[in-house]
Amino acid sequence: MDGKIGLEEHFGVADFLHDSEGVVPADRWPELKSRILDIHDRRLRLMDAFGMEMMILSLTSPGIQEIPDAPTAIETARRLNDYLAEEIAKRPDRFQGFAALPMQDPDAACLELERCIGTLGFRGALVNGFTELGENREALYYDLPRYRPFWALMERLGVPFYLHPRNPSPRNAGVYEGQEWLMGPTWAFGSETATHALRLMGSGLFDEHPNLAILMGHLGEGLPYSIWRVDNHNAWAKAPPKHKAKRGLRDYFQENFYLTTSGNFHTPSLMCAMAELGSDHILFSTDWPFENIDQAALWFDSVDMSEADRRKIGRTNAQKLFKLGGDAR
Amino acid sequence: MDGKIGLEEHFGVADFLHDSEGVVPADRWPELKSRILDIHDRRLRLMDAFGMEMMILSLTSPGIQEIPDAPTAIETARRLNDYLAEEIAKRPDRFQGFAALPMQDPDAACLELERCIGTLGFRGALVNGFTELGENREALYYDLPRYRPFWALMERLGVPFYLHPRNPSPRNAGVYEGQEWLMGPTWAFGSETATHALRLMGSGLFDEHPNLAILMGHLGEGLPYSIWRVDNHNAWAKAPPKHKAKRGLRDYFQENFYLTTSGNFHTPSLMCAMAELGSDHILFSTDWPFENIDQAALWFDSVDMSEADRRKIGRTNAQKLFKLGGDAR
Amino acid sequence: MDGKIGLEEHFGVADFLHDSEGVVPADRWPELKSRILDIHDRRLRLMDAFGMEMMILSLTSPGIQEIPDAPTAIETARRLNDYLAEEIAKRPDRFQGFAALPMQDPDAACLELERCIGTLGFRGALVNGFTELGENREALYYDLPRYRPFWALMERLGVPFYLHPRNPSPRNAGVYEGQEWLMGPTWAFGSETATHALRLMGSGLFDEHPNLAILMGHLGEGLPYSIWRVDNHNAWAKAPPKHKAKRGLRDYFQENFYLTTSGNFHTPSLMCAMAELGSDHILFSTDWPFENIDQAALWFDSVDMSEADRRKIGRTNAQKLFKLGGDAR
Amino acid sequence: MDGKIGLEEHFGVADFLHDSEGVVPADRWPELKSRILDIHDRRLRLMDAFGMEMMILSLTSPGIQEIPDAPTAIETARRLNDYLAEEIAKRPDRFQGFAALPMQDPDAACLELERCIGTLGFRGALVNGFTELGENREALYYDLPRYRPFWALMERLGVPFYLHPRNPSPRNAGVYEGQEWLMGPTWAFGSETATHALRLMGSGLFDEHPNLAILMGHLGEGLPYSIWRVDNHNAWAKAPPKHKAKRGLRDYFQENFYLTTSGNFHTPSLMCAMAELGSDHILFSTDWPFENIDQAALWFDSVDMSEADRRKIGRTNAQKLFKLGGDAR
Ligand SMILES: [Zn+2]
Ligand SMILES: [Zn+2]
Ligand SMILES: [Zn+2]
Ligand SMILES: [Zn+2]
Repeated sequence: MDGKIGLEEHFGVADFLHDSEGVVPADRWPELKSRILDIHDRRLRLMDAFGMEMMILSLTSPGIQEIPDAPTAIETARRLNDYLAEEIAKRPDRFQGFAALPMQDPDAACLELERCIGTLGFRGALVNGFTELGENREALYYDLPRYRPFWALMERLGVPFYLHPRNPSPRNAGVYEGQEWLMGPTWAFGSETATHALRLMGSGLFDEHPNLAILMGHLGEGLPYSIWRVDNHNAWAKAPPKHKAKRGLRDYFQENFYLTTSGNFHTPSLMCAMAELGSDHILFSTDWPFENIDQAALWFDSVDMSEADRRKIGRTNAQKLFKLGGDAR
Repeated sequence: MDGKIGLEEHFGVADFLHDSEGVVPADRWPELKSRILDIHDRRLRLMDAFGMEMMILSLTSPGIQEIPDAPTAIETARRLNDYLAEEIAKRPDRFQGFAALPMQDPDAACLELERCIGTLGFRGALVNGFTELGENREALYYDLPRYRPFWALMERLGVPFYLHPRNPSPRNAGVYEGQEWLMGPTWAFGSETATHALRLMGSGLFDEHPNLAILMGHLGEGLPYSIWRVDNHNAWAKAPPKHKAKRGLRDYFQENFYLTTSGNFHTPSLMCAMAELGSDHILFSTDWPFENIDQAALWFDSVDMSEADRRKIGRTNAQKLFKLGGDAR
Repeated sequence: MDGKIGLEEHFGVADFLHDSEGVVPADRWPELKSRILDIHDRRLRLMDAFGMEMMILSLTSPGIQEIPDAPTAIETARRLNDYLAEEIAKRPDRFQGFAALPMQDPDAACLELERCIGTLGFRGALVNGFTELGENREALYYDLPRYRPFWALMERLGVPFYLHPRNPSPRNAGVYEGQEWLMGPTWAFGSETATHALRLMGSGLFDEHPNLAILMGHLGEGLPYSIWRVDNHNAWAKAPPKHKAKRGLRDYFQENFYLTTSGNFHTPSLMCAMAELGSDHILFSTDWPFENIDQAALWFDSVDMSEADRRKIGRTNAQKLFKLGGDAR
Repeated sequence: MDGKIGLEEHFGVADFLHDSEGVVPADRWPELKSRILDIHDRRLRLMDAFGMEMMILSLTSPGIQEIPDAPTAIETARRLNDYLAEEIAKRPDRFQGFAALPMQDPDAACLELERCIGTLGFRGALVNGFTELGENREALYYDLPRYRPFWALMERLGVPFYLHPRNPSPRNAGVYEGQEWLMGPTWAFGSETATHALRLMGSGLFDEHPNLAILMGHLGEGLPYSIWRVDNHNAWAKAPPKHKAKRGLRDYFQENFYLTTSGNFHTPSLMCAMAELGSDHILFSTDWPFENIDQAALWFDSVDMSEADRRKIGRTNAQKLFKLGGDAR
């Protein structure tokens, strides 16, 4: 279909790229690097060739989240958001932006969020999992009380928050010892990010801020398949859940979460996600440059689903969620 | 349907029960305890009432796996397997058994496995995730080289291995700090066990022993939804996978793995599992006494699927896999 | 769920009931008769008990369509529409109405439609398949040119048209000779009505009036399963279709048609319909009094689908399509 | 996948081709004709190119069934079966055969069936819907009592019966007047053939001969979507069905029927069929030369299903049902 909009589409800048090394073998790094740095050339040609009208761009993972020093994180986020705004200004019909945020300092994250939405015209925020802070690289998850003012601001601004994957902290990676192949998009990304999302749900965040919209990539990092059991295990015991949320977590997942197809171009999983959340909460994405636009688009365009659902998932859900305007095509 | 066979159905003995405390609130423990200890009374009445002809019984988690001292593990496994054999002998038409194994000592595990299958007439082995060994409680996963002779024996005996969940080791549980509600069947069981299964697949085990049959509960601990991405991320890079297996891991998952419905009575997830593995590799189970027989059976009996598939999943797949004999009903 | 709205919900009047005899055995006729005649008593109690807020009522099949004399048809439709309007006025919060139409005379049908929508406040029209006209009981299908002004009016009024089943004309029932058990809801209703719908699609009607909304019961009388083949058979021949429509018929089916669950409470069929049309074009209905409200509601409330889709199918799709107002619940 | 086996794959002979004219526009007839007449040239090359190891060949529709004179029908069937046997003998590794049968004379049909299975080595029979008999072209359906000895023989021989479509008799085609575009594979084939199948089910045939195996093409001519309603309409009335069968018709459909994918290359319909009958009763076919081998194979090979199901549907189900031998590949 024409007019697709992508929401997990990454860019990088030359002096902040070291983090993405290791994702691919060394001999593929030049290719990946050129993909990340490019915005207006090859990327745009691929978008044209495969029916993508727009990308909402985001800084590549782990981005700001792995900077342990808060002032550096604040300055870097500001600088890269400015860069992104300049690039978007060249083709606002084709590119929009997600804010990168220095979650190391919640107050600063709020300030930068307000600036990005209010001044730079960004459409939401994308954060790469937990934030590391300090020499000990403490892992800060966003269910912590210190982030409640941030979430209040997100809700007030009415823009979505994309919870992008990152690798688990070494403290949480014992099971991967000697099994580094399981890190990254292979497996650890999904397990880590799903757990983070559950922490948010269980914290009561969505009772306090019921209008928050959280995006997750990769068709929900496995949660659509497993969320029922989170609420329904040991049902006979009728024990009140030990978390702080007022409702079953599946309620929040169905109401506050939106899933993208990034990097998970597998029809049975998509069908399961649609059965769990409904087609209004599923959105197309590619995960460029880590996944291919052609693969994502050719798959999505040919999945056997109703054209009504394809239009929603490919385009109109994003238009509504990000208030993009434009026709349904 | 009548004649259902259950494969994740646990029992315990009074002097080895401490480990299952904490799963339910204190005021539910007497109920859970009486369920675990019973075999021939309430359990059998529930089986009669809800169309279960047979259970293949297994020692409740974490069982032998959490005994850090190998000799104690060996002795305990032997004693509890003997106990189970005696109980089965009272009603072999309704109960069969899985061996509990002292994986702390691979040689001893082999000896006990041979004894259980050859002498006691058990149908397979059920192991509760990684085994802890020594004062430091080292976590031993079964992809380690020391277990290859064990797997060779499993293949030679031609009996299935049930990889039952357990909680992650503290070394791997940083993400759960302050979030203990995520432990156990809520979430951590599944994440831990899926990772263990991936380690097995990536180790080349199934290249060496292609006839192994591994059972997983809870509809596969999330893997049916995510396994495609394990093999297909970053496809453009055409990088050889970093694990040691010769084929895509989804091949082994589809060929060597069998999933049970234990504790995951959710139709969209079942449909996704059937789409990934086919109905010949899905089998009914309840997870009694942690989940209810009535809930499992009423759900399964009413799922909208073909009666042919219901018969397979409810009964004949188990008859074939465990060489149980009997008619299809 | 609470707040369900039903769209294929029939009533009758005592002096116009003969046509519904034969649907059930003689000894069940008193029960069926009392169900048909009742509106405010048992019907309302069942609606309360099973979460139906509203029914849009329609005259029971074949109704006006089997009156071969046009003036009689006109007078009868007018009389029964007036009766329905009076009954609705007693509880407009629980009942709304479909117009019965004398399609024997297209001009009169237009007049009655305008009266029903404009004066009586009805929400659409429900017609029971082809109309018989004259002594030879000619079968008039609504793709005939004489009905184009009627369709233009439907589109101008912006109200939906429900194509309800009826039995095939004897001219078309050779295959049922000696097989009367196949008539009615068992089989012939669906085959006849699906064919009528295809005639509409193939006539170019929806090219001329692209905003028409056609409702079909029983999950679309089989069309979701088969419509792809209507367009795609003999694809290699690249022959232009022999019908008059400009696009593939599946396009019209996906855009102009809305399906209700009436009398087809079968989850795999519902899933297939949702895959073909998307959940925005599926709506709950029971087919009372021929099918049971409790059966329809208990099934629908427990189908494993997202709550978002359940809310749409059960309520909000009808609110939008019939401009009913009210909250989403 | 390699090794696919096709079951609805037609051939014709030059002096018996007039019946297939009209299926495609005149300018496509030379192409269709050359496809029908060919067996060992283009057909085999396409089979090689798209992974079909074998076709079980059948005479193109309506074949013997439209010959109103019984002696002519008998002689023609005999002659064409002999022809087919000769062609198969050239490449028995790639081609096997279905018997064409003169159902005009049940005794002769039995004799020819025995000859085809016993002497010619055919694998089953394929009949093109009802048979016409006599000057009035009476339409004979196979639920008629005169065919019971034939069915007894089919069961005794243990070979499958393929109920292939044909157009309805003019007596049953009133609804198609002026709508000839609905005839043939577009729509009328399916409606006619599904009704014939229901007649068989309702006649008690499968009570008397429970081991019969009936194949239907085009994913079951719509029945998987609708068969539930055949049994479950008006359930509250608890009226005994008016047909002669002892069980619900869905039972026979699930047990005695096997569906092929011929000409219905649509994934949601395939998924619905699999949900209704299970993957053991679905088999790959193309409907060559009316549908394309490449289209059928490229679709089937890429449908997102488990490889276990793909192997069954593509190959091993046919091996079992037709006792073909060979490995699973
Ligand atoms: Zn990404
Ligand atoms: Zn268990
Ligand atoms: Zn009705
Ligand atoms: Zn054919």
